[in-house]
Amino acid sequence: METLIKKANILIEALPYIQKLSGKLVVIKYGGNAMLNESLTQKILQDVTLLKYVGVHPVVVHGGGPEINKLLQALSIEPKFYNGLRITDADTMEVVQMVLTGKINKDITAKLNLLGGKAIGLCGKDANLIEVVKRPEKDGVDLGYVGDIVNINTRLIEFLAYDEYIPVIAPVGVGPDGMSYNINADTVAGEIAARLKAEKLMFLTDIDGIRGDPKDPATLIHQIGVDEIHKMIKDGSIEGGMIPKVLGCINSVEQGVNRTHILDGTIPHPILLEIFTDKGIGTMVVR
Amino acid sequence: METLIKKANILIEALPYIQKLSGKLVVIKYGGNAMLNESLTQKILQDVTLLKYVGVHPVVVHGGGPEINKLLQALSIEPKFYNGLRITDADTMEVVQMVLTGKINKDITAKLNLLGGKAIGLCGKDANLIEVVKRPEKDGVDLGYVGDIVNINTRLIEFLAYDEYIPVIAPVGVGPDGMSYNINADTVAGEIAARLKAEKLMFLTDIDGIRGDPKDPATLIHQIGVDEIHKMIKDGSIEGGMIPKVLGCINSVEQGVNRTHILDGTIPHPILLEIFTDKGIGTMVVR
Amino acid sequence: METLIKKANILIEALPYIQKLSGKLVVIKYGGNAMLNESLTQKILQDVTLLKYVGVHPVVVHGGGPEINKLLQALSIEPKFYNGLRITDADTMEVVQMVLTGKINKDITAKLNLLGGKAIGLCGKDANLIEVVKRPEKDGVDLGYVGDIVNINTRLIEFLAYDEYIPVIAPVGVGPDGMSYNINADTVAGEIAARLKAEKLMFLTDIDGIRGDPKDPATLIHQIGVDEIHKMIKDGSIEGGMIPKVLGCINSVEQGVNRTHILDGTIPHPILLEIFTDKGIGTMVVR
Amino acid sequence: METLIKKANILIEALPYIQKLSGKLVVIKYGGNAMLNESLTQKILQDVTLLKYVGVHPVVVHGGGPEINKLLQALSIEPKFYNGLRITDADTMEVVQMVLTGKINKDITAKLNLLGGKAIGLCGKDANLIEVVKRPEKDGVDLGYVGDIVNINTRLIEFLAYDEYIPVIAPVGVGPDGMSYNINADTVAGEIAARLKAEKLMFLTDIDGIRGDPKDPATLIHQIGVDEIHKMIKDGSIEGGMIPKVLGCINSVEQGVNRTHILDGTIPHPILLEIFTDKGIGTMVVR
Amino acid sequence: METLIKKANILIEALPYIQKLSGKLVVIKYGGNAMLNESLTQKILQDVTLLKYVGVHPVVVHGGGPEINKLLQALSIEPKFYNGLRITDADTMEVVQMVLTGKINKDITAKLNLLGGKAIGLCGKDANLIEVVKRPEKDGVDLGYVGDIVNINTRLIEFLAYDEYIPVIAPVGVGPDGMSYNINADTVAGEIAARLKAEKLMFLTDIDGIRGDPKDPATLIHQIGVDEIHKMIKDGSIEGGMIPKVLGCINSVEQGVNRTHILDGTIPHPILLEIFTDKGIGTMVVR
Amino acid sequence: METLIKKANILIEALPYIQKLSGKLVVIKYGGNAMLNESLTQKILQDVTLLKYVGVHPVVVHGGGPEINKLLQALSIEPKFYNGLRITDADTMEVVQMVLTGKINKDITAKLNLLGGKAIGLCGKDANLIEVVKRPEKDGVDLGYVGDIVNINTRLIEFLAYDEYIPVIAPVGVGPDGMSYNINADTVAGEIAARLKAEKLMFLTDIDGIRGDPKDPATLIHQIGVDEIHKMIKDGSIEGGMIPKVLGCINSVEQGVNRTHILDGTIPHPILLEIFTDKGIGTMVVR
Repeated sequence: METLIKKANILIEALPYIQKLSGKLVVIKYGGNAMLNESLTQKILQDVTLLKYVGVHPVVVHGGGPEINKLLQALSIEPKFYNGLRITDADTMEVVQMVLTGKINKDITAKLNLLGGKAIGLCGKDANLIEVVKRPEKDGVDLGYVGDIVNINTRLIEFLAYDEYIPVIAPVGVGPDGMSYNINADTVAGEIAARLKAEKLMFLTDIDGIRGDPKDPATLIHQIGVDEIHKMIKDGSIEGGMIPKVLGCINSVEQGVNRTHILDGTIPHPILLEIFTDKGIGTMVVR
Repeated sequence: METLIKKANILIEALPYIQKLSGKLVVIKYGGNAMLNESLTQKILQDVTLLKYVGVHPVVVHGGGPEINKLLQALSIEPKFYNGLRITDADTMEVVQMVLTGKINKDITAKLNLLGGKAIGLCGKDANLIEVVKRPEKDGVDLGYVGDIVNINTRLIEFLAYDEYIPVIAPVGVGPDGMSYNINADTVAGEIAARLKAEKLMFLTDIDGIRGDPKDPATLIHQIGVDEIHKMIKDGSIEGGMIPKVLGCINSVEQGVNRTHILDGTIPHPILLEIFTDKGIGTMVVR
Repeated sequence: METLIKKANILIEALPYIQKLSGKLVVIKYGGNAMLNESLTQKILQDVTLLKYVGVHPVVVHGGGPEINKLLQALSIEPKFYNGLRITDADTMEVVQMVLTGKINKDITAKLNLLGGKAIGLCGKDANLIEVVKRPEKDGVDLGYVGDIVNINTRLIEFLAYDEYIPVIAPVGVGPDGMSYNINADTVAGEIAARLKAEKLMFLTDIDGIRGDPKDPATLIHQIGVDEIHKMIKDGSIEGGMIPKVLGCINSVEQGVNRTHILDGTIPHPILLEIFTDKGIGTMVVR
Repeated sequence: METLIKKANILIEALPYIQKLSGKLVVIKYGGNAMLNESLTQKILQDVTLLKYVGVHPVVVHGGGPEINKLLQALSIEPKFYNGLRITDADTMEVVQMVLTGKINKDITAKLNLLGGKAIGLCGKDANLIEVVKRPEKDGVDLGYVGDIVNINTRLIEFLAYDEYIPVIAPVGVGPDGMSYNINADTVAGEIAARLKAEKLMFLTDIDGIRGDPKDPATLIHQIGVDEIHKMIKDGSIEGGMIPKVLGCINSVEQGVNRTHILDGTIPHPILLEIFTDKGIGTMVVR
Repeated sequence: METLIKKANILIEALPYIQKLSGKLVVIKYGGNAMLNESLTQKILQDVTLLKYVGVHPVVVHGGGPEINKLLQALSIEPKFYNGLRITDADTMEVVQMVLTGKINKDITAKLNLLGGKAIGLCGKDANLIEVVKRPEKDGVDLGYVGDIVNINTRLIEFLAYDEYIPVIAPVGVGPDGMSYNINADTVAGEIAARLKAEKLMFLTDIDGIRGDPKDPATLIHQIGVDEIHKMIKDGSIEGGMIPKVLGCINSVEQGVNRTHILDGTIPHPILLEIFTDKGIGTMVVR
Repeated sequence: METLIKKANILIEALPYIQKLSGKLVVIKYGGNAMLNESLTQKILQDVTLLKYVGVHPVVVHGGGPEINKLLQALSIEPKFYNGLRITDADTMEVVQMVLTGKINKDITAKLNLLGGKAIGLCGKDANLIEVVKRPEKDGVDLGYVGDIVNINTRLIEFLAYDEYIPVIAPVGVGPDGMSYNINADTVAGEIAARLKAEKLMFLTDIDGIRGDPKDPATLIHQIGVDEIHKMIKDGSIEGGMIPKVLGCINSVEQGVNRTHILDGTIPHPILLEIFTDKGIGTMVVR
């Protein structure tokens, strides 16, 4: 009985946080290593389902991970690069789409549904959810099927998310020609949160947040402003895969998203930890 | 962090129970000693508020307790009895109504609101919520303003409970003459659950449930059928204040309420314990 | 038949007035001597019920009257004053709440329901209907549980009044601490009308309106502007209980209430007389 | 003031009747001499408008009167008869339609609107409101464009009447060929009331009701059953224009209309008299 | 099969035009010679019905034509003129109303319904659809019952047109006195389109559009601006019945109607030709 | 102009067919050779989009085609068979899912959207749209991930199809374990039509319908009953891929689908031909 009462106390502690988020949209970018670990995945998707049942409206955006490369290899499709930039030709794009929308997306969806959610797997081609234009050539280099977002069909997301459904979105855009285009999943999440004017945007990553010194966990920055981020990008302290995440945060806060976070998705239940604690975890990006 | 993750795990454990009750009506009878203890009250009302926020629709019915007697004494209103039965004359009824609807009811309501609920305090006189007739004389004795329920205005309860509100109901009925009548709060709770065809009815009492031997906690009965109850009433093992509770349970299960429970309201968070565990606590009455 | 036809003619005369108010909110402050007289009360509540049935949406605010003092006396609670101002301590407030919300409020409610209305008795503690802060000390004197209104939860009033219900509101506010606070009923009525942007606000008083000479009925003022009122308050021609009424009118007209009236509630059917005649009765306060 | 209070009392007397009819459909057949008298017409239409504003939903069906004959004469269209039955040829039907739908119908509509109603003038050709088939030849005689009702489009009537509008319906039916057909207005009213399952059907006629002896007002029958009516038709005590009225009543009560009445439309405010008195006026037909 | 496939191809060609108009209001003025020819009428009404079924919301305004004069003659009502202007006295107005609202209007309505539409015939007297004031005397001449539009009750049109109905409107206005007033049908159509902010306004006339030289079809102007029209009116190249049409177009485009057209209603299916081709037919008036 | 008028006439011919289907659900199974031919695909998807815009609600179910085998080959996944039955092991199922839901499904979806539809690509894993159980072993042979349908989540299909969306469904089911299962697309279409109680079910195949002699087009059967089909299956005249189609038809008609058809999808615009002609094309299966 003692134990049960302690558990009940913990539920009650969550109450003020639930109240604050009740009826709001929360965009969650889920990818990286957490995705590779079945047990971590399970915990993240439990968090998402719980959110839905306590009256919050989660929208999940996922990334790709190593499965794309595995299939490219198996099909002996040569990766092409130019000056270190990957070129997405038609064959590559086909594989990207199949893996993202036909495997990862539907598997996440099914796992959420097993947990009692009513998830629906979508990509940018569904009802023109994510409209893109081909990224223009730069320095004479054509990157192929890589897209820049020009519009998000928020009506469909809201139609589903405010009803009983959880939209799960793969980062494939649709061009004006109906063709598929590859887009960075972090960019998609940031743009969707911004256009939805979501309450919250959360990047689940492989690292605990932005660090003053990327190699030193002790230098984790709990809160950071837009100007400071631009400085850190310029001086190289923020680099690589962290850049689209911080830009997604900036894009979102500037369009009214209340709280944007970069946090470690490899901790169990990272979403609940971020949501049901006062300080949250990881790095919060503010205006 | 360890602690936080454990807490998150506990939230996740609640998920299947939340899913099962999502969108359903739950009637909670709250009274007795729990009401006298500020700290227990606080925990019970936290439970009610949490239910509301996780998508369950609680309806609270409360009893009176010693406050009525305190005011009767202070006003030197003589209690009248006939063969051990209390007689509710007009003066007494006025005091009963003032204390139940003007003190206890509004205080519970305000406490729920402090916790973030949107509670509304009602009694049977509001929109004729609980229609009664005067209890007929028996053996030539007129018990005065004591009512027998003839109708529940479920429309108002549903109108509020399915919206954002928590109805808190005092056990005062209204007669065809517009006069107030005293009703047993357990009877009110049972009748409301039955007419609403609620999912669940819970009596928070001062005892852990029905016991084979009232004095021996070890004889707690976890589940009991209607026939067995009638036998125990007849042979006197169920008696006194327990009778309206078990009859309320029977009335409810026979009209389609799924699960009816008598449990100890003096344990912290009794509602969550009953709802978020497989076995529940206390005694479950089944058909 | 002659008589019947004359009666029908009178119903028809009401038509243009009904048309003008159809679908609008009307706030009625009811108190004073009218409340003490059963027959006058009956007529006023008939008026309210008729309004509801002809498509107008009445909201009733009531005052206290002598019942509070009666119970205070019976309980031997000493009235405390400082320089002529009454001090509402905790014991007094408890009595005030019990009488206002547990007796007068529910009795008015039940009477309306007997007439076929669907009245619901509320106070400021229901869903935080009337939020107040404690009135600050002045000249070192703490008046106790006396509140100044900071917010009205208009959503609940509209939710009920635009549906089939008649809200009946007792002038008890709720503080940020969940405690009850005494508020002047006239102030409550004025504030509610103002925040609802009601069509009409009516104060049913014991006097026929504002008089040039308070003792001379022949000096009744039929219409008066805000500036003139301020002058009369300053020179003492408006004083005492009339002040919160005229301030309520001013507050309301300045926030868009169309027509505010102070009228004699001891005339039979004062609401119908005011509403179904071109000139109305009593004093109209205009901007 | 005395007079005003008396008037208010009369309004209050209407309250219980309004409550009983609130939200219900009432079909009113209006025709005959009342229609010829501007002052009586005005009073009847005031009654209809008042009903609408007190929350009842009137549906008006009107007849033709002498205007049709006047225009037929002016156009020198010979009335044709066979064995005493009028034959409606194409030219006649055109005149009937123009007068009924283009003059009488729109004039009633405009008068209601002047009184503040929102009336809409319709006939059976609007959205196929009244579908008829040509009356079959009998004894080798073809009556021309005379229709028997086979369907009423109740959806349109309810769409308008439950919104803010008052449907005013001319007795012209539409055949499967889109042609216009003449129908008895009393039959139309009875059929509409029956199909709408209206609360009430009222025939405003030139006589005070069904009389035992048609020439003796003292023999007015206040209530009569279906069997008795059939007997009176057979023995000729009910004859002529009274027959479709009583059959309309029978048709309606048999399909669930609660109260059907034949009453004198030349009394001022006949609708209010029937509705706002316990006994009503005229003859009530019961099952 | 070949033929069928060709037909299918033609349906498919219509798709982009349907998409563009889907859910929009289109006002169609129908009158003149097209109305006299049964076969042309049939084709126009098929067009209207098709529009409704493919998700466009047509509103039809019709004119009078020679039927009014025929009935005036048959009734020997002398046309009165003053300096070439017709004077509409009460007798004339009665005939105008009967023919417009009781014959032409209901006949168009019935024809649409035969084709599967759900048309409802209305005039300005229905729910005060078209409110007018009497045209003021000019040079001492009183034109009688001729009205100038002061208001359109767009709520009723939208209520019907956005539901399953097709409003068919006769050009009879209602004065503040409830009397009927004659109005030019083209003016009505222009005003309705303007107030509805319709997507499109189409005048079906007897001529192919505005011509540089009225007698030379080769001078048809495909598109014309407001300034140019005013010039052509001034110099007399636009005159007579064309003037209210072009003014209706100007009125509409200036209030936000997207595309206004004057086209030949005697071509079969003129509405489809205008709507389902890129250029449309006739003359388009632009700002 | 002549040509335009002819085209308009053809649109008008479609009107009665549009009226009959307006607001109804139509399930279209699309697969086979039509899917391989870009031009035929385009025409079929135009048909689907046109249906949506004329107020019919299409639901598309598609099959797989040779793309699955191509990818299986490219990945050197050995097809496994037992007695001629293909065995779907986990690797095969992964490929099946990727191609069906990640390539074919999203490509059809994007093509519909290019045409102006608002298509959404779904499979059985989305919100548990198609729940299956593993097909039981038969004669000791385990076919692997092959599913038998036990439930269709019609709520999601209706939620989307009655709104502005076109659901496009890939034949992948979800098991109670959340795993993917292969299902015959014809079976899916039949089951969906049956559970939706759709108005119409259409199988677009490579053949013109059921033939008496499969090799002789002249023996095409225009209409056939359930008993006759069972006979033809037994005697082998219906065999192979035609069997799930006819069973799908039977399943559907027995559950209330009005008209089920097997038709040649390689004719241009087969859907319009079937829908907009009286006889339809291909073979109709009736009860």
